Amino acid sequence: MKTPLSEKIAKRPWIGWALFIGTMAIVFVLGLLAASIVQRRTEANILNTPRYEIAEFEPRNEAWGMAFPREYQTYAQMSDTNFRSKYGGSAFRDLLEEDPRLVILFAGYAFSKDFNQARGHIYAVSDVHNTLRTGTPVDENDGPMTSSCWTCKSPDVARVMSKMDPADFYKSKWSSMLSEIVNPIGCANCHNPKDMTLRLFQLPLKEAYQRKGKDLTASSLNEMRTLVCAQCHVEYYFKGESKYVTFPWDKGLNMEDIEKYYDEYDFADWIHPLSKTPIIKAQHPDFELFQHSIHYQRGVSCADCHMPYVTEGSQKITDHKVQSPLNNMEASCMVCHKQSKEELIRNVYDRQDRVTQQKILLEDILVKAHIEAKYAWEHGATSEMMQPVLKLIRQAQWRWDFVAASHGASFHAPIESLRIVADGISKASEARLELSRVLAKLGHLDSVPMPDISTKEKAQAYVGIDLKKLRAEKEEWKKTKLPKWLEMAKERENAMPLPKRIM
Amino acid sequence: MKTPLSEKIAKRPWIGWALFIGTMAIVFVLGLLAASIVQRRTEANILNTPRYEIAEFEPRNEAWGMAFPREYQTYAQMSDTNFRSKYGGSAFRDLLEEDPRLVILFAGYAFSKDFNQARGHIYAVSDVHNTLRTGTPVDENDGPMTSSCWTCKSPDVARVMSKMDPADFYKSKWSSMLSEIVNPIGCANCHNPKDMTLRLFQLPLKEAYQRKGKDLTASSLNEMRTLVCAQCHVEYYFKGESKYVTFPWDKGLNMEDIEKYYDEYDFADWIHPLSKTPIIKAQHPDFELFQHSIHYQRGVSCADCHMPYVTEGSQKITDHKVQSPLNNMEASCMVCHKQSKEELIRNVYDRQDRVTQQKILLEDILVKAHIEAKYAWEHGATSEMMQPVLKLIRQAQWRWDFVAASHGASFHAPIESLRIVADGISKASEARLELSRVLAKLGHLDSVPMPDISTKEKAQAYVGIDLKKLRAEKEEWKKTKLPKWLEMAKERENAMPLPKRIM
Repeated sequence: MKTPLSEKIAKRPWIGWALFIGTMAIVFVLGLLAASIVQRRTEANILNTPRYEIAEFEPRNEAWGMAFPREYQTYAQMSDTNFRSKYGGSAFRDLLEEDPRLVILFAGYAFSKDFNQARGHIYAVSDVHNTLRTGTPVDENDGPMTSSCWTCKSPDVARVMSKMDPADFYKSKWSSMLSEIVNPIGCANCHNPKDMTLRLFQLPLKEAYQRKGKDLTASSLNEMRTLVCAQCHVEYYFKGESKYVTFPWDKGLNMEDIEKYYDEYDFADWIHPLSKTPIIKAQHPDFELFQHSIHYQRGVSCADCHMPYVTEGSQKITDHKVQSPLNNMEASCMVCHKQSKEELIRNVYDRQDRVTQQKILLEDILVKAHIEAKYAWEHGATSEMMQPVLKLIRQAQWRWDFVAASHGASFHAPIESLRIVADGISKASEARLELSRVLAKLGHLDSVPMPDISTKEKAQAYVGIDLKKLRAEKEEWKKTKLPKWLEMAKERENAMPLPKRIM
Repeated sequence: MKTPLSEKIAKRPWIGWALFIGTMAIVFVLGLLAASIVQRRTEANILNTPRYEIAEFEPRNEAWGMAFPREYQTYAQMSDTNFRSKYGGSAFRDLLEEDPRLVILFAGYAFSKDFNQARGHIYAVSDVHNTLRTGTPVDENDGPMTSSCWTCKSPDVARVMSKMDPADFYKSKWSSMLSEIVNPIGCANCHNPKDMTLRLFQLPLKEAYQRKGKDLTASSLNEMRTLVCAQCHVEYYFKGESKYVTFPWDKGLNMEDIEKYYDEYDFADWIHPLSKTPIIKAQHPDFELFQHSIHYQRGVSCADCHMPYVTEGSQKITDHKVQSPLNNMEASCMVCHKQSKEELIRNVYDRQDRVTQQKILLEDILVKAHIEAKYAWEHGATSEMMQPVLKLIRQAQWRWDFVAASHGASFHAPIESLRIVADGISKASEARLELSRVLAKLGHLDSVPMPDISTKEKAQAYVGIDLKKLRAEKEEWKKTKLPKWLEMAKERENAMPLPKRIM
């Protein structure tokens, strides 16, 4: 039999000492770890407590950046517009050039002139200056747009609105706010300057929920991480004479609910000049389609993927470079999904490809319907004959646009998107069938001749857009008119105090 | 200073003994646990080693059941046809009654007479006796069907085929095998009787992969848990004079690939009597659409959900009651998904509802196209005028049927299903547009009168089916003719030896 440990220790006391010292060493290291955790917590508390007093309507993102340099740094990275996309990178993707059918579908509406892929929030104001859609107003009472167009572009909007009646703001000319609205979508749109909690700053969302009798104050943090986005990433319209920005949600958030809402108002954004259809322009029903996303249904918020948590030094912060999750998969998708990056990207593209294929098919049918309707009008069709046709075109274009205009629809909600597109295909096809009957009754039995709209130039020529002239006018305006307003804004902002250091 | 442990032990030896005995106790319990594991392994080995020698082509499931009573017991539970479905439970769901459009779409084809929802494998043979589709053959050389129809119904098929040329089998009359094929789909279809490993027993799948030069012997167990199902749950057709059962996969497994394959052969299952369209009947392209399922793409096999592992006493066995996973969610879905049963069911129904909505819409358009084509033929349309119409109807019906005929398509692959249905809607609508032009040229400007097909009875009357007569004939046949063949089968099987006990 071996000697028991107790006897060994009794004989050789150094064994006892070795055990004692070893234990002490382990306890010491544990202490160090505990201290490090406490220290990081303290640091986090200090960093999350505003060291500056930020004014209630502070619109300048740089001013907020003084208090929150880490978050502001990621926000500023939005100026980088390179991103992962199957269409290749970056910057200005001219959607009319990529798909000239859009020129026909938006004929008579500003999007047929100029329609680029959206860039990051940081470009919200300058892109609105640049686009041909806003025209070239000569003074504060001129131009095609009203200030309702500003609503989602800047934290200046709530600041200006706090001093005037919303209805007066919305109906004022877009140009009248060029010296007031200069800061792109940013900090104030989502954060309370007192304590940095998320808040709803924009009026229309709050009003929409008020009408539904729903209280948003009980929203959880993760719900807020979606709701702040839903302040703008939704379907909306400009209601009545005052162009009051309104979310058409009173009957529900589904495509059919919103259509019913508009139909009850006999609402139309514009009358299509080819087919004479009263069209509803879908804005970007992102939040509405996101309801049908399995991600949403499993409790994932917009920010979880588009603004994931990252570690910056010792700090866990929210990445304020709002962008496609494909650009940042390690921090977004791959936090939950254990597949390879290649597999996940393939899954995304698979969904997008299928929706896009049928969306393009729907566009082809819709384009033909508009042109055939024009032909029918020109050859003696009466309003009575055309009424059922126009109703079908309106329905079909609404379905198409609901999916086409929504950011990320084909990934967020591919099944609902395809359901809507399939429904659109049937409506647009039915319109063409009706049209063939109308034309037959008018003695036209052959198929209607189609114009060549294979390029943006040809399509714009067909609908009577002189792009060169519009572009020259815009460039001239940016050189001669815009700087005056921007100069006024600069002077005004220079007189505004900067945030005060409070600790 | 306190006394060190070593000195304490030296003074009081009972402390050392306590430590020693405590350790022994723990080691003893560990030993018990290890023994229990070894014992269960041994038990598993014994139970998984066949104690009976089963003949190579043993078709009788009860005979296999002697060796594997646990698995056989779950197999036998398939006679219970109650299952969870939004359509309510069980047994014979008459699909023609639920959706009389099917009578029009399948006019001229046996499915327009009788089309019930598939029941479990255990009913495979008796349902084939029962259905009006197989007619009432008076002898071995009579009846509408060939033995190719038997291919997937029974393990007797491979047994019979082992004794004759496959081509001779396929082209023989269905009635000629009534005394040979009596055991429903079961053990031998998937298992090697020597060692119970999974094997591919059916000829057509092996031949399809051989043509593609693909070796299936390297398949993993989990791949086999899908491939054994793919022996039958696929698109197939009866090729040439001998009605040789063939999988049309040479160009790929996608809907368009298979269509291209058929088009190259100018293949048609039948000529539709209303529109005179050469129709391809989709069988059940389950495996093909499953390729587009996220479950398949993440490595989930058919058996994982439809035949999940369960614990039966001390044994982990595969549940051989092949059924909808919704019927057994704890053992299927909920092994991976941590949501509530209610939420998961809602997710399934959400997908199914969306696909169904658009599928029904496509049916409506297709039905009209068939009837309008009939009207056009009756009013002087020429083959030349109708050719583009018929091509479109063929394409549209193929797209519809590819989704409609596939079991579980709308859950397995809702996105691909909706893509296909949307494509079908555009083709069927285009057919109607072409038809309206054809009719206009023939002087018919108004819409074509539609028959009342609001019930199965009305629809069957319209296509000239006398259901009462067919049913009476079938009942008479089951009473007077069928028993003779079944008696012959019984005598033959009684002479077959039962499996021999070998341990």
